[in-house]
Amino acid sequence: MKTAYIMISNRHIHLTREAVDVLFGKDYELTVKKPLGYPIFAANETVTLKGPKGTISNVRVLGPMRPYNQAEILTADNFVLGINAPVKLSGSPDLAPLTIIGPAGELKLESVAVIAKRHIHMSPEKAAEYGLENKQLVRVKIAGERALIFDETVVTFTDIPDPTMHIDVEEGNAAHIKNMDIVEILP
Amino acid sequence: MKTAYIMISNRHIHLTREAVDVLFGKDYELTVKKPLGYPIFAANETVTLKGPKGTISNVRVLGPMRPYNQAEILTADNFVLGINAPVKLSGSPDLAPLTIIGPAGELKLESVAVIAKRHIHMSPEKAAEYGLENKQLVRVKIAGERALIFDETVVTFTDIPDPTMHIDVEEGNAAHIKNMDIVEILP
Repeated sequence: MKTAYIMISNRHIHLTREAVDVLFGKDYELTVKKPLGYPIFAANETVTLKGPKGTISNVRVLGPMRPYNQAEILTADNFVLGINAPVKLSGSPDLAPLTIIGPAGELKLESVAVIAKRHIHMSPEKAAEYGLENKQLVRVKIAGERALIFDETVVTFTDIPDPTMHIDVEEGNAAHIKNMDIVEILP
Repeated sequence: MKTAYIMISNRHIHLTREAVDVLFGKDYELTVKKPLGYPIFAANETVTLKGPKGTISNVRVLGPMRPYNQAEILTADNFVLGINAPVKLSGSPDLAPLTIIGPAGELKLESVAVIAKRHIHMSPEKAAEYGLENKQLVRVKIAGERALIFDETVVTFTDIPDPTMHIDVEEGNAAHIKNMDIVEILP
């Protein structure tokens, strides 16, 4: 059986060096609250997201800093903020605009908010064993009282030992699954 | 093709005459904010849900009053409230405990909170046409960028003209669908 671990993300934001300078102060360094898969960590720092209709505060910053700013939000947040963030893979262009507010300043960004498209990180070796290719779309079966089959799940080559499926909190709750649950990639 | 309309519910509560007496005052009558499928309506009245870990305010009361109290919450609310509401059909016994707070008083209920199991209301005539039976479990296909197949969907006989699938906000957001979207019941 082809399997993957589940990893569930709440809303969060990735920031560039330049954005951290504006939001938290020149040369400010993010501090580690909780290590996630190396080198990624949940930082102690949070920001507020501001859209035309509303704001969401206490949005966790993920470190380390990246070459681009990206707020990964929930579908429910689209309604609160009054924006129309698209469902796309992390790192995609043409995202929705938002203002990001930190303790030292704010930034108005034209392309920053996205709803993460569900995907499975997998090493090329494991993918070969499973007969899968990079960027291939697969279906993933969830058992239990809220059983469902996630379609449109993108295989993403990453150098990690075990295949790990990333979904957001709403997807996890809709399927009643939790972190580190093991799910089946359908043939 | 066998189809159903989608109807998405946010958290809400159904109350008995006795509960309304305690929460809003003796002989208080719920007032209509918005008619839903007759005779159900969203009331102007709201309550606060209180669990061992936290509270959720502005929870909409649905009218008319019923023979039993039932708070239909989201999976995310389980974590906020610190309870473990089960996934069950509306009207089931053995739900989770909660304290309900209204402007005139509060009620501690031992069996009140549930996460609604996804289901499709359908007339016996339509079910016969579709070759389905009451309480049968079916799979429902959602297309689009967050395509998925909902399994474990209960057919529920109700005297309505068009089959209507009830899901909660987290299920709707996980599938990126909205009210009145048309979905396919799989053979």
